[in-house]
Amino acid sequence: MNLPLRKEDYNMINQEDIKSQIIQAVETVRQTNPMAGSVTNTVTINFVANAQLAVGGSAAMVYLPDEGEFLANVGGATYINMGTLLPIYEETLPQIAKVSHDTGKPWVLDPVAIGIGSLRNQLLREFKQYKPSVIRGNASEIIALAGLWELDGGTDVSNARGVDSTDSVSDAKAAAIALAKWTGGAVAVSGKTDLITDGSVIAFSYGGSHFMEKITGAGCSLGGVVAVYATVASPFIAALTAAAVYNLAGSRAENKVDGPGSFQIQFLDELYKASAADIASNSLEIKEV
Amino acid sequence: MNLPLRKEDYNMINQEDIKSQIIQAVETVRQTNPMAGSVTNTVTINFVANAQLAVGGSAAMVYLPDEGEFLANVGGATYINMGTLLPIYEETLPQIAKVSHDTGKPWVLDPVAIGIGSLRNQLLREFKQYKPSVIRGNASEIIALAGLWELDGGTDVSNARGVDSTDSVSDAKAAAIALAKWTGGAVAVSGKTDLITDGSVIAFSYGGSHFMEKITGAGCSLGGVVAVYATVASPFIAALTAAAVYNLAGSRAENKVDGPGSFQIQFLDELYKASAADIASNSLEIKEV
Amino acid sequence: MNLPLRKEDYNMINQEDIKSQIIQAVETVRQTNPMAGSVTNTVTINFVANAQLAVGGSAAMVYLPDEGEFLANVGGATYINMGTLLPIYEETLPQIAKVSHDTGKPWVLDPVAIGIGSLRNQLLREFKQYKPSVIRGNASEIIALAGLWELDGGTDVSNARGVDSTDSVSDAKAAAIALAKWTGGAVAVSGKTDLITDGSVIAFSYGGSHFMEKITGAGCSLGGVVAVYATVASPFIAALTAAAVYNLAGSRAENKVDGPGSFQIQFLDELYKASAADIASNSLEIKEV
Repeated sequence: MNLPLRKEDYNMINQEDIKSQIIQAVETVRQTNPMAGSVTNTVTINFVANAQLAVGGSAAMVYLPDEGEFLANVGGATYINMGTLLPIYEETLPQIAKVSHDTGKPWVLDPVAIGIGSLRNQLLREFKQYKPSVIRGNASEIIALAGLWELDGGTDVSNARGVDSTDSVSDAKAAAIALAKWTGGAVAVSGKTDLITDGSVIAFSYGGSHFMEKITGAGCSLGGVVAVYATVASPFIAALTAAAVYNLAGSRAENKVDGPGSFQIQFLDELYKASAADIASNSLEIKEV
Repeated sequence: MNLPLRKEDYNMINQEDIKSQIIQAVETVRQTNPMAGSVTNTVTINFVANAQLAVGGSAAMVYLPDEGEFLANVGGATYINMGTLLPIYEETLPQIAKVSHDTGKPWVLDPVAIGIGSLRNQLLREFKQYKPSVIRGNASEIIALAGLWELDGGTDVSNARGVDSTDSVSDAKAAAIALAKWTGGAVAVSGKTDLITDGSVIAFSYGGSHFMEKITGAGCSLGGVVAVYATVASPFIAALTAAAVYNLAGSRAENKVDGPGSFQIQFLDELYKASAADIASNSLEIKEV
Repeated sequence: MNLPLRKEDYNMINQEDIKSQIIQAVETVRQTNPMAGSVTNTVTINFVANAQLAVGGSAAMVYLPDEGEFLANVGGATYINMGTLLPIYEETLPQIAKVSHDTGKPWVLDPVAIGIGSLRNQLLREFKQYKPSVIRGNASEIIALAGLWELDGGTDVSNARGVDSTDSVSDAKAAAIALAKWTGGAVAVSGKTDLITDGSVIAFSYGGSHFMEKITGAGCSLGGVVAVYATVASPFIAALTAAAVYNLAGSRAENKVDGPGSFQIQFLDELYKASAADIASNSLEIKEV
């Protein structure tokens, strides 16, 4: 047996294949301007839309059940972000999740603030059956969601504090893998280093900026951008591509600014300007689970 | 008969008259800081308000029926943008439209995303009787609204895709004229070149930027700025003035930036800095229908 | 008796003591990243969150009653801004106010647009018993709230126009003092010069920028930042600290920009960069009532 060598070979080939899929995702989005509808929180809704547009997608946001269903049907993918729930979401969100699931359309879930309030947990429990194509969250949210769905690596949600993570990305590894295995899609854990898994392979995406914690919406808008890429790529590639362009644009933007206001603006510019090749070359490490 | 000469003379005089009315609209707004209330979508609500403030107006946004009625009564004009409908809008929007219509106050309608969902089309049908002073939309929205109101140039709304136009501005000419004739106000079709008509005259406003499609809210905020100018000018002059300042600020901003994030910021700065004379001199072509 | 001298001495000591408390508030927030939850309007909700993050706090926004109660319980302080009321606020806002009051947690009230609509005034009347720790508004809002609560210096709310002040800060002095005496907390009146009082002492904070009236959300986000400081300081010191950093960042930002779009961005940068010592040294005048 010569496992170290074979593993390296495997990884090199795999990495090249993934790179070319990332390039294709970036370029196809820019050429076809695909629409990914969203129901997302009012705090960062503008930033989500602008990020989706900056990478070449088209955005549309709604609140009402039949409008959500419409977007899920005509869009290439749909994004559900749980940030600021309204009463009508009790109908809207499960309807989108069900339609997406039943028609085989990708949908992306951001379980923001899991643990806060009864409707949020009720909806998140309901989503288990509709198997989101990509789940994106911080470490604490991913661990709590695995707990809510009674999967490995999860804990109960009773220690929620708000919208910030109190766990590190590596703490969420088992939960992320369990969630991905359940959904058959991908899970992205955002943090200093991003962890993305499809349940069998784990990728680490490097870069980003300390300013991303000093603005609101870096995570929310990443979810929206994942949905844009999910219109043209597999859940795992969509999540990888979004993480790569975010980490690249984040570190480029940080080099040009000295405050969070400017960072946000420069970040959108860098999302728009990043070449497919540079995005695919952003530091990425891939391991088998 | 010497029609060509007479027509030139007519147009030259007409153009000069229009220019001086634009200058007056710009200056009166800056001097009097008029309030134009809005019910507008949560995606771009901040950009709408900031654009209204940048041109010298005052902004106020509400959701509840009696608050909408209050703003319609105390404001100089009101803006209704259909972007992200909430259940309560079933009461709020018709109430604003009715009060504005009955008291002779100008109101501006942006029929965003016409064709998506049942409430949206129900409300838009209801608005026919309240004759919005200015209707602003992209080509597809204008054509669809004429269709919904069973006017010339319209088609049915069943081919709606989301919030983006799939038709060109010139395709919407007949629909725009028919809508303006019905309302007795003005219609503004946004696109590469903007078309504005009062039903008897058609104006084309040139300029703008390709970045306007790469940010969210260029159209929504234009509607809000039309409402600001409608507090001090006729619907047609209000729509022309808003188109002119948008096209001027858009092209000036584009020259100074290299991404959509910076564009949005620079655009607000240029709205604020543009002189009345420069706005009135922005490229404008006027023809009789 | 040597009153002039003693008063000077008193004020000098008092000023130094206040400065050191401001420094401590700024530094403690930056070190501990305290969470202040909000229910705030959708126009400026993003700016509120980004301002709270820029000074070192953590933000979380919700709409539903049990979520509001959750944030009030786990956060260090809560912010209620009345900007764009939704129907559900009839339950959410009193619940937050009651929980905060009953548990002794600080909460900050911004009575935006007082006088518009029936729910707004009903809620504001209800808040009287829950004694907000800090009330922040423009002069007209402070005067109207004192009127609604039947305190000295107030007038009835029937002359409300929208969201802009039609009174000067000094006109609101008696109302501000009466409100502070009633609540036992602090009142901050925003204007060209900001007035902050705890009912026995009046402080004037200088600086800021004319651009603050040309962007939406300078006042709203100030309220959110007051809530952040209220997690670690007394209501009076929290209001003083927030006013100082706003006035400092506003004047610094104005020096670097020539339009309201850039101002907003630069302002967030300056909030982030301002040193505790510079914030504490921002021009401040303190008088006994």
